[in-house]
Amino acid sequence: MLIVMKAQAGQEDIERVCAKIELLGYRPHIIPGEQRTAVGVTGNQGAIDPAEFEDLPGVAEAIRVSKAYKLVSRETKPENTVVSVNGVQIGAEEIVFCGGPCSVESREQILDSARAVKAAGGQLLRGGAYKPRTSPYSFQGLGERGLQYLAEARGETGLGVVTEAIDVETYDLVESYADCVQIGARNMQNFSLLRRAGRSRKPVLLKRGMSSTLDEFLMAAEYILADGNYNVILCERGVRTFTDHTRNTLDLSVVPAVRDLSHLPIIVDPSHGTGRRDKVLPMGRAAIAAGAAGLIVEVHPAPDRALSDGHQSLYPSQFAELTSECRAIAGLLAKRQGSTGSVSV
Amino acid sequence: MLIVMKAQAGQEDIERVCAKIELLGYRPHIIPGEQRTAVGVTGNQGAIDPAEFEDLPGVAEAIRVSKAYKLVSRETKPENTVVSVNGVQIGAEEIVFCGGPCSVESREQILDSARAVKAAGGQLLRGGAYKPRTSPYSFQGLGERGLQYLAEARGETGLGVVTEAIDVETYDLVESYADCVQIGARNMQNFSLLRRAGRSRKPVLLKRGMSSTLDEFLMAAEYILADGNYNVILCERGVRTFTDHTRNTLDLSVVPAVRDLSHLPIIVDPSHGTGRRDKVLPMGRAAIAAGAAGLIVEVHPAPDRALSDGHQSLYPSQFAELTSECRAIAGLLAKRQGSTGSVSV
Amino acid sequence: MLIVMKAQAGQEDIERVCAKIELLGYRPHIIPGEQRTAVGVTGNQGAIDPAEFEDLPGVAEAIRVSKAYKLVSRETKPENTVVSVNGVQIGAEEIVFCGGPCSVESREQILDSARAVKAAGGQLLRGGAYKPRTSPYSFQGLGERGLQYLAEARGETGLGVVTEAIDVETYDLVESYADCVQIGARNMQNFSLLRRAGRSRKPVLLKRGMSSTLDEFLMAAEYILADGNYNVILCERGVRTFTDHTRNTLDLSVVPAVRDLSHLPIIVDPSHGTGRRDKVLPMGRAAIAAGAAGLIVEVHPAPDRALSDGHQSLYPSQFAELTSECRAIAGLLAKRQGSTGSVSV
Amino acid sequence: MLIVMKAQAGQEDIERVCAKIELLGYRPHIIPGEQRTAVGVTGNQGAIDPAEFEDLPGVAEAIRVSKAYKLVSRETKPENTVVSVNGVQIGAEEIVFCGGPCSVESREQILDSARAVKAAGGQLLRGGAYKPRTSPYSFQGLGERGLQYLAEARGETGLGVVTEAIDVETYDLVESYADCVQIGARNMQNFSLLRRAGRSRKPVLLKRGMSSTLDEFLMAAEYILADGNYNVILCERGVRTFTDHTRNTLDLSVVPAVRDLSHLPIIVDPSHGTGRRDKVLPMGRAAIAAGAAGLIVEVHPAPDRALSDGHQSLYPSQFAELTSECRAIAGLLAKRQGSTGSVSV
Repeated sequence: MLIVMKAQAGQEDIERVCAKIELLGYRPHIIPGEQRTAVGVTGNQGAIDPAEFEDLPGVAEAIRVSKAYKLVSRETKPENTVVSVNGVQIGAEEIVFCGGPCSVESREQILDSARAVKAAGGQLLRGGAYKPRTSPYSFQGLGERGLQYLAEARGETGLGVVTEAIDVETYDLVESYADCVQIGARNMQNFSLLRRAGRSRKPVLLKRGMSSTLDEFLMAAEYILADGNYNVILCERGVRTFTDHTRNTLDLSVVPAVRDLSHLPIIVDPSHGTGRRDKVLPMGRAAIAAGAAGLIVEVHPAPDRALSDGHQSLYPSQFAELTSECRAIAGLLAKRQGSTGSVSV
Repeated sequence: MLIVMKAQAGQEDIERVCAKIELLGYRPHIIPGEQRTAVGVTGNQGAIDPAEFEDLPGVAEAIRVSKAYKLVSRETKPENTVVSVNGVQIGAEEIVFCGGPCSVESREQILDSARAVKAAGGQLLRGGAYKPRTSPYSFQGLGERGLQYLAEARGETGLGVVTEAIDVETYDLVESYADCVQIGARNMQNFSLLRRAGRSRKPVLLKRGMSSTLDEFLMAAEYILADGNYNVILCERGVRTFTDHTRNTLDLSVVPAVRDLSHLPIIVDPSHGTGRRDKVLPMGRAAIAAGAAGLIVEVHPAPDRALSDGHQSLYPSQFAELTSECRAIAGLLAKRQGSTGSVSV
Repeated sequence: MLIVMKAQAGQEDIERVCAKIELLGYRPHIIPGEQRTAVGVTGNQGAIDPAEFEDLPGVAEAIRVSKAYKLVSRETKPENTVVSVNGVQIGAEEIVFCGGPCSVESREQILDSARAVKAAGGQLLRGGAYKPRTSPYSFQGLGERGLQYLAEARGETGLGVVTEAIDVETYDLVESYADCVQIGARNMQNFSLLRRAGRSRKPVLLKRGMSSTLDEFLMAAEYILADGNYNVILCERGVRTFTDHTRNTLDLSVVPAVRDLSHLPIIVDPSHGTGRRDKVLPMGRAAIAAGAAGLIVEVHPAPDRALSDGHQSLYPSQFAELTSECRAIAGLLAKRQGSTGSVSV
Repeated sequence: MLIVMKAQAGQEDIERVCAKIELLGYRPHIIPGEQRTAVGVTGNQGAIDPAEFEDLPGVAEAIRVSKAYKLVSRETKPENTVVSVNGVQIGAEEIVFCGGPCSVESREQILDSARAVKAAGGQLLRGGAYKPRTSPYSFQGLGERGLQYLAEARGETGLGVVTEAIDVETYDLVESYADCVQIGARNMQNFSLLRRAGRSRKPVLLKRGMSSTLDEFLMAAEYILADGNYNVILCERGVRTFTDHTRNTLDLSVVPAVRDLSHLPIIVDPSHGTGRRDKVLPMGRAAIAAGAAGLIVEVHPAPDRALSDGHQSLYPSQFAELTSECRAIAGLLAKRQGSTGSVSV
């Protein structure tokens, strides 16, 4: 059960709800949000009657949580959520392209990348300043210096910046430079980090974990919304399976599945999703044809010299081909479906 | 090492090659094909010098088998193979749609299906007369009666018939009615069945096994080619993973991967690949955008009354939408890529 | 619903049952067994009342098939099934060891292997005369000559012979030499082969498929029992997952799971299950500690010279250590559990 | 390349090494440890000559990092590491049992659990005060109050306390109460948390991630050792696969694999590894037979009333049976192997 408070509900309203929950022998969990507070109820074995709460002052509604996720559910909000990142609308009419290198390696590299991404039709710039690396001995990113270079690239090109935060400690810093904060696959169930993202005003790009089910993926997003940040973009980036012809198995079926269950926009990362440059173009096209709201793609001005993931980074000319083909597909489908919106499922 | 004999090589040429192989201390494996015989060599630790064999009478060439698969490899044959099924070209300019029910259930059902498939733009009719079923107590198909109904449907509509053979015993019968014989996912490594298909003159549709790697998939096709049948169409139908939002995980990345490594055409089955009707359209579009040569899709005139797989079968109107959207995508990509051929990878 | 006929039921009794089924609008499936016939009912949406059938002449009982598998279920037969292979009891008090090479390679090799297996405490001899190989160019086995060598080894050592049948065509031959016919992992859902095994009088060793669920594994066994052969031994041999430190992931939890759900004995193959010689001993011990009725293990007199799977074959001395340690564990557990039976779960 | 400094090396020695690395065009990574500092080198394409560094003052040795993990490798340290938790030696002669509830729910519950664990032969007490939960609405643990109850339970029973830290923010607090800090499966690649654990003086129990390869598992441990904490215990708790008869697939083969590659002790969690109470006993026995140094098991005084994971928690009497059977197996194997140490692989 989730008791959603009205926006204008006061502290005493919330306390009254909590007292009632405890009186019934259950446990209240206050979930403060930006616009309204919710109170989760746990400890109950069976269902609770919503009427127990809906008459209390300040209560908007009491929702039986049939599905484990609630705020991300399309039942709760039937219309698509559109997330604005530096003025770029994700989940709206146009499909969106975010390109850039795996890591910020130098000022020149990120500026070159940004120019190439913009020239090739990209609207957002990606690049990691803090890198979660399997080995403690691998390059861990330039840190704040990398963030500064990203900001400089935004200043010059106007591209919004998407960059990863890998822990609560550095979230403030990342947030202060980024237009959208990425939470990586390895951190999809780092619940403290999700809660921190929930307290942020910046949009969040949440990547699916390597062995995450759809429910777990949506529940991870629920953590962010439950703490008050409704600007969440989901991202499929491949899951781990027995196959060995690609680095991960890009599970495009999650795109229509998410669109069915949730109002949040979903984009696809065909670079990590395949791990091979020559698979990015066909799988990028496929993602758009499946209904994705956009792509996040690794592009490097000189992939062969990249410090990480060079083998899966596109050359700028390939990125241009990708954006062009994908926009043609999206346009065709939108036209056929009698609307200017993104591809319907 | 694979010693490929000339078409006109005689029995004594083959025996001479075998004798030479044994003389070197290795083991010969005669692989008779329809048009030419090959002799595989095993038992060698390192590489063998091709010159040892290429001067012998009747030998076309001696090929070092660097990859485990040889005849299916694009190295061996750089141009795309086009397989003709009842006059429909698979792997050529146009994408191809094969539709129909999971099982042939009755004369009326398959005739209705065939008319609907044709009206909706399909060129081939699918439907199982012999069904491999997890349970011995499930409906196992109508057998020859089902094959007769399929033939009748072909007679009326002109659609070529694709239907499954589940064992060597009934292969003759299936082959006598079908235009293309399907080998299902569970039989992908039923090597006796593959060899039987290799001795057939009818094209073969080989489905990827549920936990098959790309190499194993291509090796299974190699069995068929090695026995002399070069008309093989590959089919991705989803693999088994931890995910639970679809019945299988449709691994579309195998489409560009196959096109890179092999000359054989590959199509996609989004019905088994997702197990859910509402995922067939977006994933079908995605398959074409990824470069598939066509789709095989479950269509049923009345899905809710289907004896098997009704929940994943399209209504005829949905199939019409699918063929139309996919052809638009394929046409757009072909045009952009300056050719009328199928989507390049 | 499964209508089990009495052993002495006549053809007219069966036809009467079928007529009744059709009268109710369902579909009868006659499942002839050696000792008694069963009639499966499909096409029903909800449950059928057993009383509809139990009064008919010749009917032993009408069973609601709550679980998909029925004859293999412990509900149907609470006591453990003990399968006798050449006088060795599998599923009874003592754990059983079957050892030998992957393939029969020569008369000397299999005789040496048999002597080593016997000396090291093994009771059954394994070795493939027909090999299912991923590549058509790999060694495919010695065929009947291999079977003759196995029979000769049995003659000398008294070890019962377990060897694989890979298709219906050669089943007769394999059956005529073997004491127990193995159906391999790739053929676990080769239903024609399962049906052939069901018509055999020889015990069957059924290996779990690479991506088989427990239900599918038990259903495959059900095919064999449904055709009248109740002497089935199940075998866990590892499943396919993302892990790369072993060739397959040995899923020992299936041992207690099978023992809970089915009366059939289950043994474990730690050789294929790990693919690495140095993992066979610890995982073999683990299998016995988990409650397996025995082990099937690759042993080769000279693993480094084996034509196949040498890297996972034990040296005879290692096999001796394995049988000894495992018998000690089994003995200890049997004693602790106040019985002389195999380890209880 | 890893440059390991001598214990007495000074800051100027380290700086000299870093300068040399930069002079060669590479990137130095200072990895401070408790007793000695190491300097990792990245940015090199090929191998570096160790002689470049071994003559510099303060350098103990320069090691080519052939495997990605270095400090955890058995090559680096051939003898087994024994980790002491509240006086209990893990990885030494005796196998160790850690039992207790999933979550600390109340003072009474944890005190009852501790008494039961002790009475049943356990040496360590587990129980989560901070719980990583898939849903934000699930019970998240009692926090510090839970830690206080655990400490009280230790005070009464003498059992050492193993409890989880879920983020850097609360690590100090957890560390101040715990004898061993657990890092859970979802956090196995939360590198900031691993680094925090590396700076702790308390032993760490590191659980394998749900889709972690062996290499990634060892690399995660490497993070902790690289920051100076050598007291790491590894724990297998099941991986995510397609199977559905258990909650996870317990991959026991990782036990001998870890023992082969690393000096760190490895224990097994059959509770999470199977998710079913009736599988814990057989799989616990199997783990010990495979060579595990101990087990961590969920035990609850009243499993049916547990707030989380009750279905996989043992009754105290079952835990007693488990410890007794496992100790018998371990004793038997130790005796057979002519030592009193833990089971050799």
